[in-house]
Amino acid sequence: MSLLVVGSVAFDSVETPIDKIDKALGGSATFCSVASSYFSDDVKMVGVVGEDFGDGNIQMLKNHKIDISGLDIVEGEKTFSYGCVYRDDMNIRDTLFTDLNVFEKFDPVIPGEMKSSPFLLLGNIMPALQLKVLDQMTDVKFSVCDTMNLWIDITRDDLLKVIKRVSLLVINDSEAKMLADEDNLIKAAKKVMEMGPEYLIVKKGEHGALLFGEGKIFSAPAYPLETVFDPTGAGDSFAGGFMGYLTKVDEINFEAMKKAVLYGSTLASFCVGEFSTKGIENKTKEEIEARFNEFVELSRV
Amino acid sequence: MSLLVVGSVAFDSVETPIDKIDKALGGSATFCSVASSYFSDDVKMVGVVGEDFGDGNIQMLKNHKIDISGLDIVEGEKTFSYGCVYRDDMNIRDTLFTDLNVFEKFDPVIPGEMKSSPFLLLGNIMPALQLKVLDQMTDVKFSVCDTMNLWIDITRDDLLKVIKRVSLLVINDSEAKMLADEDNLIKAAKKVMEMGPEYLIVKKGEHGALLFGEGKIFSAPAYPLETVFDPTGAGDSFAGGFMGYLTKVDEINFEAMKKAVLYGSTLASFCVGEFSTKGIENKTKEEIEARFNEFVELSRV
Repeated sequence: MSLLVVGSVAFDSVETPIDKIDKALGGSATFCSVASSYFSDDVKMVGVVGEDFGDGNIQMLKNHKIDISGLDIVEGEKTFSYGCVYRDDMNIRDTLFTDLNVFEKFDPVIPGEMKSSPFLLLGNIMPALQLKVLDQMTDVKFSVCDTMNLWIDITRDDLLKVIKRVSLLVINDSEAKMLADEDNLIKAAKKVMEMGPEYLIVKKGEHGALLFGEGKIFSAPAYPLETVFDPTGAGDSFAGGFMGYLTKVDEINFEAMKKAVLYGSTLASFCVGEFSTKGIENKTKEEIEARFNEFVELSRV
Repeated sequence: MSLLVVGSVAFDSVETPIDKIDKALGGSATFCSVASSYFSDDVKMVGVVGEDFGDGNIQMLKNHKIDISGLDIVEGEKTFSYGCVYRDDMNIRDTLFTDLNVFEKFDPVIPGEMKSSPFLLLGNIMPALQLKVLDQMTDVKFSVCDTMNLWIDITRDDLLKVIKRVSLLVINDSEAKMLADEDNLIKAAKKVMEMGPEYLIVKKGEHGALLFGEGKIFSAPAYPLETVFDPTGAGDSFAGGFMGYLTKVDEINFEAMKKAVLYGSTLASFCVGEFSTKGIENKTKEEIEARFNEFVELSRV
């Protein structure tokens, strides 16, 4: 099966309490695609970058067998750049700068054969763009949308339109409460599902994740990390690992999604161990299976 | 096997965002004993109350087959009374009053035959009193200590002495971080275990609980509650259910403790559904098994 990933591609300048890095590869489409590439050889990525993107980054994506024919490289423009500082507990980041550059005019055009992808992952970008992608798709079997508090805040109506049209929404716990205007997480989750999606994943960071659907709930543990080096991209890596696994097994049901949540958690746990995409590059299938089995073991009774 | 429970017995006046209650039965020994009574017919409770304690409360404990020959009823004195208000998110409570009354002079004297109890649960009371209990015990095989932020703050040295002598410490996540002076929960847990106990349980409220020991970690899910009616006694009920199950199976190893954590979580989830001990009174074994199985199912892959 093929998986289409649409989202941002960016250069991230990140400062954590431990270290800092300048202009490293980032963006939702990047993390999602690399994470999903461990499960499917048919991952297609649609996004936009400037002429400064660099051969090294192109090569890394190609090494992961990601089809980047839908990655628009615009001459004379610069790649979207984002800078932030994480506070001591790593749960809050303060934005230092957002240079949209080429991303400002991003108008996702899905190349012909990609429009019929059965699996679609809408990485975290402006909901209006996610809607444009949905409008172009012809045969989507299972679609996932990731989002963030900013869009709940400033483009709620568009976001609600997206949510109504996707199969699964992935969101973090504070965002779920914000979207539903409800303090209790379980009540909030039910209210969000009434907005449209058949399935919902609530990410809880260091407390794991919850999957809702088919009238059931699955509680996934968090990996017991002693050091979070850089949380940037963890949510995207989660979504990518989740969707990669589902694309691979080509099954759309709660049991398959439980495993997919643990594969997503696996990729997210690797992601936070290093800056940029370094934590999820060049992993072996054995490393991924071993970490997945650790996740299973963590909650096995 | 027999289980000795030592702790406070109190009247709680509680106000939550939903409702309020005046002078309802509470206290760590009370919740711990009632919760553990579902697993063992040999639960012995040591504590102190005033002459106002009331026949109804005595009868409820007897109905649960709890041996209350070690419950000292002091003539002319009043039972320890505590009043608090929970804030909207139920995670913080503000104390309204603390009338120690008869509890002020509580000096736990363990009756003869109870000194040889193989299982000991030290409910949340002043660490100096927990030490006095430990000094009287002759054949403890497995001991658990519960505590709270107040004791970490004001009687840290005594608490460290207790921790060094018990088999397992049960504590919540913010307390673990406070005790270890460490922001990362996994690092904090490791530091706390270096203080003495062979096993450690970190309660995370709506995020479940973590069990540490034998070089392993078990992550237990939280029950997906849409309404927390009153959190008072949830931690005590957890400890009681945990210890009751271990007493019943008489096994001291990580595998047994994993199930014990889920039975503790089961009793805690019942506790928060009603005021006082009402949520954990008169449960059937079928109700407990059904809820336990729901916990197992929540994280089953």
